[in-house]
Amino acid sequence: MYICRNVEALEGYTPGEQPKDSGVIKLNTNENPYPPSPKVAAALREFDTARLRLYPDPVFMELRRKLAALHGCSVGQVFIGNGSDETLSLCTRAFAEVGTGSIGYFDPSYSLYPVLADIRGVQRRPVELADDFTWRMPPDYTASLFFLTNPNAPTGMMHDPAVVEAFCRNFDGVVVIDEAYADFADSNCMALAVDPGNRNTVVSRTFSKSFSLAGLRFGYLVGPEPLVEALYKIKDSYNMDMLSQLIGSAALDDLDYVRENAARIRTTRTRFSSELTRRGWTVCPSQTNFVFASPPDGNAAAVFGELKRRRILVRYFPGPRTGRFLRITIGTDDQMDAVLAALG
Amino acid sequence: MYICRNVEALEGYTPGEQPKDSGVIKLNTNENPYPPSPKVAAALREFDTARLRLYPDPVFMELRRKLAALHGCSVGQVFIGNGSDETLSLCTRAFAEVGTGSIGYFDPSYSLYPVLADIRGVQRRPVELADDFTWRMPPDYTASLFFLTNPNAPTGMMHDPAVVEAFCRNFDGVVVIDEAYADFADSNCMALAVDPGNRNTVVSRTFSKSFSLAGLRFGYLVGPEPLVEALYKIKDSYNMDMLSQLIGSAALDDLDYVRENAARIRTTRTRFSSELTRRGWTVCPSQTNFVFASPPDGNAAAVFGELKRRRILVRYFPGPRTGRFLRITIGTDDQMDAVLAALG
Repeated sequence: MYICRNVEALEGYTPGEQPKDSGVIKLNTNENPYPPSPKVAAALREFDTARLRLYPDPVFMELRRKLAALHGCSVGQVFIGNGSDETLSLCTRAFAEVGTGSIGYFDPSYSLYPVLADIRGVQRRPVELADDFTWRMPPDYTASLFFLTNPNAPTGMMHDPAVVEAFCRNFDGVVVIDEAYADFADSNCMALAVDPGNRNTVVSRTFSKSFSLAGLRFGYLVGPEPLVEALYKIKDSYNMDMLSQLIGSAALDDLDYVRENAARIRTTRTRFSSELTRRGWTVCPSQTNFVFASPPDGNAAAVFGELKRRRILVRYFPGPRTGRFLRITIGTDDQMDAVLAALG
Repeated sequence: MYICRNVEALEGYTPGEQPKDSGVIKLNTNENPYPPSPKVAAALREFDTARLRLYPDPVFMELRRKLAALHGCSVGQVFIGNGSDETLSLCTRAFAEVGTGSIGYFDPSYSLYPVLADIRGVQRRPVELADDFTWRMPPDYTASLFFLTNPNAPTGMMHDPAVVEAFCRNFDGVVVIDEAYADFADSNCMALAVDPGNRNTVVSRTFSKSFSLAGLRFGYLVGPEPLVEALYKIKDSYNMDMLSQLIGSAALDDLDYVRENAARIRTTRTRFSSELTRRGWTVCPSQTNFVFASPPDGNAAAVFGELKRRRILVRYFPGPRTGRFLRITIGTDDQMDAVLAALG
């Protein structure tokens, strides 16, 4: 009786599998197999813990200056959140009106979006992708807020940035281009986000993948100042702690390290994808740090179980669209060799 | 046109003053003058930064076990957030329905509550305190959610826990007893929060004050499992990063340290309050790590400006209820002597 109706109706929260067993090859949550930059360790080593008695910078100016310089925009165009989860959730509260609003996203895509729509209490408006997971927009489609995941998850496939840009310019609502995996892709839409003519499109990024900092919770978003300002108005006063600011800043001082790791992962991805293809698997063309692939007999559930028995954890999404596929994070070369050996 | 009406109508975000100048005596945001436990520094020193590539425990079981043991409740009765700001904000989204809901709080009290009501887009229902800042509840008062700050801020005054408990048991809505300052008080309402007969009351705590960890963002909440479960349903998947979990856990292993610091601050508070009273100030009886006090001529604004000129930063809240007072954080004995010298 005390709980809001839409919250009461939500499924209980089911966290992803985070095994304690260090012997497991963990390729189920798209974590980076390489550690974060050595500059992160150095920054932590030099940190004086007495400073933790003080509140952090509530508007993280140092970080915003670095990100603004990186993307060629103003600090007023940069928002930072406690992980992309927080920035995406804030977008639902800033851009989708309870009662009349709606939230769109691809199906299949990141499974968080429909949950965010339910939490906000607005209508879900999924856009079904074609059988080959390419994008066809239904005519007369509308939504207050559209989460456009590019590259998409769990498919790993990239929608042509020119097509995305044309869609955004014509869309009558806010578009959040979720570029969680952009650092593993050939291109991205950041140029649109910082374009002075852009009024409705923001690009979301995260340090969880390419920066090897999933443990940190660092997401950010770049876009038109009025949209960014709306997020600042509704965020928690101090939404990013002092150590996350310190570490994020140190990581931004070592972009070469991030790029080298991303290049390594792309090389491993190419090799792994080719080998799966050679063995008769259907492999979606990946622009991310994972591959979405279907075994020759389509019995992905069986392969998932067999890999798990051999202490290799990958991700399986049951259901008519995704149930023939496995999502396999790209780890180190050794880890992928172990997967290939187990599959052989 | 893209932004929700209630967000559009909000005032722009104004962060609290966080001077970079290390020569300033900073007594304006109720930070603890003492550093966090040495166990915090040790935990950080031993931390392997390579682990940051992995996601943190999404439901922070280790921390919840320690807090459940501390308060004599189940882990299902403990919620942890990215600072109390997040836990309080989640409460508005779980317990105050958009359209029909309302949020109550004392006036004066923590200035975040009316902002949270506006962000949620529900009615504000302030309860005006008496001229001496004691609590009189208007007859027939209702609200979906009531933030009951105890001890209250900025007054520092404690409402009798027996009176609070009687109010909660009769209130037809959710009560969040915000006990941010409880570790500096003679008593608290945690027994009510963990009482099996309690259906509607949660107690909120923070590590920002007594634990000297404002930089961390660590808040938690204890109450009936159904209410706590509602918060888990709507929280961000990974709302607490790995280092905050590590440090929070280390701090919980050194409660004696926290208690000793709180006792030191209470001793300093007594001495400082007595000296102000001796000089003719009106001092609200404080059960917190700050005092709310009015100079003999009531011209708090002038004193605020004069202290600032001498590089002592305290807090001044203009307005008819609070404008004759200053809120002065209790720092070290040396810092309070400096304040007294400046006032003399």
